Amino acid sequence: MRAVVMRNKTLITETVPDPVPGDGEVLVKTLACGICGSDLHALRHLDALVDAAKESEVPFMLDPARDVIMGHEFCCEVLDLGPNASCTARPGDRVVSMPLLFRGSGMQGIGYSNEVPGGYAERMVLSGAMLLPVPNGLPADHAAMTEPMAVGLHAVNKARLETHDAALVIGCGPVGLAVIAALKLKKVGPIVAADYSPLRRTLAQTMGADVVVDPAKRSPFEAYRETAGLRPAVIFECVGVPGMIHETMRNAPHSSRIVVAGVCMENDSIKPILGINKELNVQFVFGYSPEEFAVTLQHLAEGAIDVSPLITGRISMEEVPAAFEALAKPDEHAKIIVEPWR
Amino acid sequence: MRAVVMRNKTLITETVPDPVPGDGEVLVKTLACGICGSDLHALRHLDALVDAAKESEVPFMLDPARDVIMGHEFCCEVLDLGPNASCTARPGDRVVSMPLLFRGSGMQGIGYSNEVPGGYAERMVLSGAMLLPVPNGLPADHAAMTEPMAVGLHAVNKARLETHDAALVIGCGPVGLAVIAALKLKKVGPIVAADYSPLRRTLAQTMGADVVVDPAKRSPFEAYRETAGLRPAVIFECVGVPGMIHETMRNAPHSSRIVVAGVCMENDSIKPILGINKELNVQFVFGYSPEEFAVTLQHLAEGAIDVSPLITGRISMEEVPAAFEALAKPDEHAKIIVEPWR
Repeated sequence: MRAVVMRNKTLITETVPDPVPGDGEVLVKTLACGICGSDLHALRHLDALVDAAKESEVPFMLDPARDVIMGHEFCCEVLDLGPNASCTARPGDRVVSMPLLFRGSGMQGIGYSNEVPGGYAERMVLSGAMLLPVPNGLPADHAAMTEPMAVGLHAVNKARLETHDAALVIGCGPVGLAVIAALKLKKVGPIVAADYSPLRRTLAQTMGADVVVDPAKRSPFEAYRETAGLRPAVIFECVGVPGMIHETMRNAPHSSRIVVAGVCMENDSIKPILGINKELNVQFVFGYSPEEFAVTLQHLAEGAIDVSPLITGRISMEEVPAAFEALAKPDEHAKIIVEPWR
Repeated sequence: MRAVVMRNKTLITETVPDPVPGDGEVLVKTLACGICGSDLHALRHLDALVDAAKESEVPFMLDPARDVIMGHEFCCEVLDLGPNASCTARPGDRVVSMPLLFRGSGMQGIGYSNEVPGGYAERMVLSGAMLLPVPNGLPADHAAMTEPMAVGLHAVNKARLETHDAALVIGCGPVGLAVIAALKLKKVGPIVAADYSPLRRTLAQTMGADVVVDPAKRSPFEAYRETAGLRPAVIFECVGVPGMIHETMRNAPHSSRIVVAGVCMENDSIKPILGINKELNVQFVFGYSPEEFAVTLQHLAEGAIDVSPLITGRISMEEVPAAFEALAKPDEHAKIIVEPWR
């Protein structure tokens, strides 16, 4: 089959062996797979990513020197069931799955594995037990958004929101936009959102932000104070570059909660006394639970969240390297969907 | 009156004007005043402390270039009531107070003020409305421990403890010991406590730690895992030097909560990805509420917490500079009480 292979910090489209479904696994055709910011980061810094996972005792087996086929935000069509695949899905069914494959050899992170391909490939193997049928005829590209939107729901759940909480979302890339959608669903407001990109500010409004700010022109924290008054903020840091946590701690109102949803891989510098004097809470978040993943799929299928504005490109595998370049410029795109069958 | 004056990073015992109680204030005789680690820090780095307070928008008016009489952990005897002092206390009564004085000119932090003396002086003025009578004949030196012990109760309250939570206390200086006492009162266990000092480890056991560890010999996190199993930890960082937050994040079990009760004034370095991968929560804490202060006094007066083992020295004002030196060596002392009437 054809696949986009990551090798030596480059992406190469080439022919690779077809995956073979093992015990309890299902062979699927990839219909749609989103490009995630983590993939952009992994292309340049896979070593650091693997090192950090090891340091955090994440059971994650990946040799950065070997080939990886990325892609962990996918919707697929079932082609064939492997031995002992105990699932209700049948060939032709449209399914999504959390990007985890459970094998006797250990857990594989789909999209960050040397052993099985991710969604930047024509075919994949998934754990039968992990499959969720896509309901209501939800289009494949929308269903592929389950994964990134679940990240937003999880971040919001971890924020332990209470009545009268107001939110400030710093950074309106796919993570920030997913957070805004989840906040809106929970009827949290006002939601103040900040991004340098006009496209992303527009998308933030579309997803439910009440006030959007260009940080080049105005402090998001000032806008928050003007909008929400003196109450503590629930601040979602969705940028993930060094300095953002300090900047947020420096400007946060007293007793604010900071949810760190942006993935900063580098060392970072903070000033603990600012956190102490203001009694800040910093909640780091990662991924989502199986329940949050399933609930998010339901939200999309029932129209509670409309992800269509977020999908700003649909491309073939040959176009993936160019898309990685394009996504580095935040004013052109939000989410680009790879359609490996193109 | 005689007082220990902080001037140009030195402590000088000299005669200063007697304080005069203003509107709503009470003149008191200082019976006992604890030396706090913050005072040791302020002696060297008062500028940084004031700058950080300003940066955090703490309403705290202190000119580090002017004289300060420190001491914010005190028990006093009422001498005289100023005009309009609406309190039930009468001359001869023994009282404690949160170290805050409310004046028309603004709030003064008692012990960190240019305007009013702290407890390293023979006499002080307190806000009548802030006075709490010392019940049950609790000795003055024990009552002076209300303030530091309230810090521990507040840290534990901010930890949002749940059934089956177990605790790891890193650093068993006065803050760590106060945390252990508060955990014990809340019946949280097991409590694992770590400190390099044998004296402090002994005190940790006295206050209620179930397991004590010398970090030079064994990782406190390993000891925690052995004692509490695989459950997430509620970790109290009570050291407050650069690197401790990173070290705690690096070793904390997944989903742990870290309560930062140690006051680190310097810039510090963290690795956000460790927090993200393990979904850690970092709660910075400061001070206590008026309720927590009052409840702590009650705990001491009723014998629910016995602070006598923590008091390792009782000194005159002349001995304060030497006591500051001694407290820098953690194996000689826990809490030294200044008795300015000596």
